[in-house]
Amino acid sequence: MIKLNEHLASLPGSYLFAEVANRTKAYSDANPDKTLIKLGIGDVSLPLPKSSVLAMQKAAEEMGIKESFRGYGPYEGYDFLRQAISANEYIARDAVISADEIFISDGAKSDVANIGELFSIDCRVAVCDPVYPVYVDVNAMAGRNGSFLNGIWSKIIYMPCVPENKFVPELPKERADLIYLCYPNNPTGVAASFEGLKTWVDYANEHESIIIYDAAYRAYISDKNLPHSIYEIPGAKTCAIEIGSFSKNAGFTGTRCSYIVIPKELKRGGKSLYELWYRRQSSKYNGCSYIIQRGAEAIYSDKGKSEVSKLISYYMSNAKFISNSLKKAGLEVYGGVDSPYIWFKTVDGMSSWDFFDLLLKEANVVTTPGSGFGPSGEGFIRLTAFGDAEQSRIAVSRISEIL
Amino acid sequence: MIKLNEHLASLPGSYLFAEVANRTKAYSDANPDKTLIKLGIGDVSLPLPKSSVLAMQKAAEEMGIKESFRGYGPYEGYDFLRQAISANEYIARDAVISADEIFISDGAKSDVANIGELFSIDCRVAVCDPVYPVYVDVNAMAGRNGSFLNGIWSKIIYMPCVPENKFVPELPKERADLIYLCYPNNPTGVAASFEGLKTWVDYANEHESIIIYDAAYRAYISDKNLPHSIYEIPGAKTCAIEIGSFSKNAGFTGTRCSYIVIPKELKRGGKSLYELWYRRQSSKYNGCSYIIQRGAEAIYSDKGKSEVSKLISYYMSNAKFISNSLKKAGLEVYGGVDSPYIWFKTVDGMSSWDFFDLLLKEANVVTTPGSGFGPSGEGFIRLTAFGDAEQSRIAVSRISEIL
Repeated sequence: MIKLNEHLASLPGSYLFAEVANRTKAYSDANPDKTLIKLGIGDVSLPLPKSSVLAMQKAAEEMGIKESFRGYGPYEGYDFLRQAISANEYIARDAVISADEIFISDGAKSDVANIGELFSIDCRVAVCDPVYPVYVDVNAMAGRNGSFLNGIWSKIIYMPCVPENKFVPELPKERADLIYLCYPNNPTGVAASFEGLKTWVDYANEHESIIIYDAAYRAYISDKNLPHSIYEIPGAKTCAIEIGSFSKNAGFTGTRCSYIVIPKELKRGGKSLYELWYRRQSSKYNGCSYIIQRGAEAIYSDKGKSEVSKLISYYMSNAKFISNSLKKAGLEVYGGVDSPYIWFKTVDGMSSWDFFDLLLKEANVVTTPGSGFGPSGEGFIRLTAFGDAEQSRIAVSRISEIL
Repeated sequence: MIKLNEHLASLPGSYLFAEVANRTKAYSDANPDKTLIKLGIGDVSLPLPKSSVLAMQKAAEEMGIKESFRGYGPYEGYDFLRQAISANEYIARDAVISADEIFISDGAKSDVANIGELFSIDCRVAVCDPVYPVYVDVNAMAGRNGSFLNGIWSKIIYMPCVPENKFVPELPKERADLIYLCYPNNPTGVAASFEGLKTWVDYANEHESIIIYDAAYRAYISDKNLPHSIYEIPGAKTCAIEIGSFSKNAGFTGTRCSYIVIPKELKRGGKSLYELWYRRQSSKYNGCSYIIQRGAEAIYSDKGKSEVSKLISYYMSNAKFISNSLKKAGLEVYGGVDSPYIWFKTVDGMSSWDFFDLLLKEANVVTTPGSGFGPSGEGFIRLTAFGDAEQSRIAVSRISEIL
């Protein structure tokens, strides 16, 4: 009989959001008269920018006409989008990344998941704790996991991110080969400083490790002194791969477009990682839809930029209100300033799940328990600012009332 | 230093199409007055069906309105498309596949490449020879390859597909765990019979192997007695995974949409392969764009079906003309009846590359040398019927003249 990939077949179920859904449903079924407000999931609620809609409609029209029809596109993505990303996300921020260091794909999750294929299954993975579960799961599936006990894998290095270290981890005692960093962070909502990232860039260059830098939330950075890209840190081009997304700035969660940056000078074992990624992508992927790439390009037009800026303002006004209100109510609150996530401590030392239950039953608000993101998330709760403004305000006033 | 995935890092370059491009460019540069006609690459040339264009424009509009906006979609794809595929590709052909056995993705290449992750890296892979290079490359990257000599990998089982066995391989002497079959076939252009597939389904059930059945070209089958799906063969639901595409029927090569079927009763080691795939996809992929899924759904409307049928007729009229003309010119020709590919023998025992050069230089037609698809392709040439009708006719008359 054919054998299964045991790393995948033995992977524990994805417990967090399933358990949130179960508890929510059980409460809802037992209390049909209560109206729940959901601030748990990181999906956006506002529609796409009009510029993107119009660009995609025009691109679809082109595809219906023989003279302007396009078949297979370039594996790396169309140059019009790669150029727009280079100019607006990098050159404009003094990070020297050219169009030919950028690959377009259908989503940051795909890139986060697939980039590991460039490296040996023996390499040691380091993640922040708490962490976006995908970084851990995809490495577990690849066999970089070891044994699973108390919610953590024996071979993966979990690096606590807590108020004491401003949610930027200390360098690990064990050698880390493949290091996942995400700033502004999901779930803690905190952005990294220039100095915080420099420590990591220096470490990675010294140890010839690789940093996978997930910048999906960078459009939410409000403090102009904070780095938007790891390539603003000197030395990052020889140790870091950066992933960007259109999901959280332009509302592309259901439209699907993202990009990954692999600098030309980034090499390991004498091999260009850009070329290895090209080989991987050209063998396993046929590129992101032309129509969608035109939709992404449009957010860099003047009109598109102004529309995206309004989307961000809307969510950040939610974030500010949530964060300030919870502080006023006496909670210890992080995030919500340079990110759409609000991360706060439970009261009276309650566990994340106990506090989740309390908020569900007493305030009728659905949240995400911090312990679901890793052991160091215990005692915290995550809220998102991606909801409707009015609903978010009602949710927060309900939470404040029961405290 | 972080170690690379040596299976990827040591993979030989993708020689075939690069070499075709090199020789074509060299000839073109030296002979700027000659007009080349390209019948080498399997990309389509006609525009998308109007139904798809309109559906995508409407979907884009919905995404720009708060009330109809959609964020993250279901990992398996939207039910409207899964239902349409079940009804039209399966139930209509007496293959009992329900919507909840179908996963939507961004392309058959992605599914072909990723499905291997469900299985151990120890399993033995069997492919047809000649073969679509992706089946081999993705397994080589995963470490199922062994050593590379004379264009073949020591651990991969290559099964000759030649005129003598009607291009359907005989059962291998060594045990095969993961078997890739593609019918109508790329590159040989031949469709499989019911009996030909039954042999393989019986083998796979007996040995508890898995067949990956690539049905990307099934819309081109003209003989009503030939199976369009492996699930028309009794027993296939306990041994086969099927991959379908919208690229070659509806012209989605640059639009990107496909599907994979994993029957609910398909299990190995007591595990449901559907559930393993769900776990893989939900951890590594966030689904195909809502807009694109609406475009794919539209090809199953009455108007869409009629438009797709016109596209197929156009290409098949090319195929018929190419095939008949080359036969009249005295060549030994296969394919072109139930597939858009024409596969013919070179003359006077010439090698594929020598004949490629002759056609390039004397007829100014770019083809694909059969040996690039594997050792049993030596002495053959592949042409595609996806080009412009007028250009295809000129190309064939030029070829006929030099023979």
